[in-house]
Amino acid sequence: MSIDTLALVGAGLIGGSFALALKQVDAVRTVLGVGRNPARLTVARELGLIDRAVDWAEAGQADVILLALPVGETEAVLRQLAPHLKPGAIVTDAGSTKANVVAAAHAVLGARAADFVPGHPIAGSERSGPGAARADLYRGRRVVLTPQADTRADAVATVRALWEATGAQVEMLDATQHDRIFAAVSHLPHLAAFALVDDLAGRADSELFFRYAASGFRDFTRIAASSPEMWRDIALANRPALLAELDGYVAALQTLRQALNDEDAAALLAMFSRARGAREHWTMET
Amino acid sequence: MSIDTLALVGAGLIGGSFALALKQVDAVRTVLGVGRNPARLTVARELGLIDRAVDWAEAGQADVILLALPVGETEAVLRQLAPHLKPGAIVTDAGSTKANVVAAAHAVLGARAADFVPGHPIAGSERSGPGAARADLYRGRRVVLTPQADTRADAVATVRALWEATGAQVEMLDATQHDRIFAAVSHLPHLAAFALVDDLAGRADSELFFRYAASGFRDFTRIAASSPEMWRDIALANRPALLAELDGYVAALQTLRQALNDEDAAALLAMFSRARGAREHWTMET
Repeated sequence: MSIDTLALVGAGLIGGSFALALKQVDAVRTVLGVGRNPARLTVARELGLIDRAVDWAEAGQADVILLALPVGETEAVLRQLAPHLKPGAIVTDAGSTKANVVAAAHAVLGARAADFVPGHPIAGSERSGPGAARADLYRGRRVVLTPQADTRADAVATVRALWEATGAQVEMLDATQHDRIFAAVSHLPHLAAFALVDDLAGRADSELFFRYAASGFRDFTRIAASSPEMWRDIALANRPALLAELDGYVAALQTLRQALNDEDAAALLAMFSRARGAREHWTMET
Repeated sequence: MSIDTLALVGAGLIGGSFALALKQVDAVRTVLGVGRNPARLTVARELGLIDRAVDWAEAGQADVILLALPVGETEAVLRQLAPHLKPGAIVTDAGSTKANVVAAAHAVLGARAADFVPGHPIAGSERSGPGAARADLYRGRRVVLTPQADTRADAVATVRALWEATGAQVEMLDATQHDRIFAAVSHLPHLAAFALVDDLAGRADSELFFRYAASGFRDFTRIAASSPEMWRDIALANRPALLAELDGYVAALQTLRQALNDEDAAALLAMFSRARGAREHWTMET
């Protein structure tokens, strides 16, 4: 599988790594870059992530167009791109939420939504931006695609083959199921970490508390070092699933609180043991 | 500063590392071990953590006796030890909670509670037991002492000097303040991680969720791999402070939930930004 032209909307860590990986295995001949930030595209070109910076009209002539940007910008970018899409062009994305991206594609692209393949690579890095891109980012990582009933089968096959060419393992999920899963295993933990640190930071004597925070606290709150803007957008984009997860988590904490209040040692031990067992089972498999 | 005889009640990671560090700088001549598990003491002797396994009567003749065991066992151990304490012997501990340990010392030791110096080394390891002990465990780490108004000043000075001889930095806190701080920066995060993993593990399709859990989730839940028995004991030992922390955390999550429910992007961004800023400020200092 190889294509002639890939266009990146967003040539940062995610888009740039996709391009580098495909170039490395000759799965793409030319990589174009488009976006609102010319300086960033210049950097991406200097780093070899893209061959040329182009306008929306030229980007629309690519065989495959990857949106690798904050999910909140999807609809606006699709509006820029829609008038220029050549017949048969495939559009795909790398957003952390899928139901809202699918809705944006249907709203903006109409019948051409069949050419849109929603995707989510489960990969990232503490770093971001073009300088963080690397050809092996996706090797051995999972990429989830959430095609709809009306998505063109050959477009899904092309996007799948490209991700596989980067070394990733591609899996299919329903978009709603995807959002429910990632609300639980990614979005909720991020919000829980932000809330925990903010709860501490808001105290008059917070310096005293942080002074005694040790490695467990550091691990636990590392994800609270993530981009506030990105997490604001993800939280809003996956609002219904995330509200349900927050409610479930608060209920679990209330159950724990009740056991502690009642000095119910057996209930505490049972909960902690189940959690440790599940985590051990999971980490052995991954 | 050096002493003739140290007795360890509990010759695992914490007690064994204390003994090894003191031996290394000739701050102690003889290390005795006492406890209910003869096999463990044999291992501790073979590893050179202790010189001899002894009974409670002989342990009570040591200059300094360190209790390095689950905090829930403090009172029972003090009852074993109390009848045998030689005049001037100093008793100290390494428990994760302090108010309950102080209460146990007063209840059991009466006037001799003045010889008891409550302590808490902020150090640990993923591993535990005698085999995990190492002489440098405390180098550069903090040790908190929480002496009471009636604690002998020279006993505090001796315990402080011994911890400093292990390479640790010793600080003083009020016992209640200690418990409040560690409820927030250690005990609550552990309970929050246990609750999050248990909430996931209890679902019919939990395998599907864990399948997509990535590195952020792994970091966030690492502390849920800790000993369930130890955390049950710590939670019960620090119950009042921990209940207050749980309430504060649930309130913070509810505030966040409200902002998300109201699609209040500014409030979400403000909370996430404060949290990231506080965490960056803290990690730069440590």
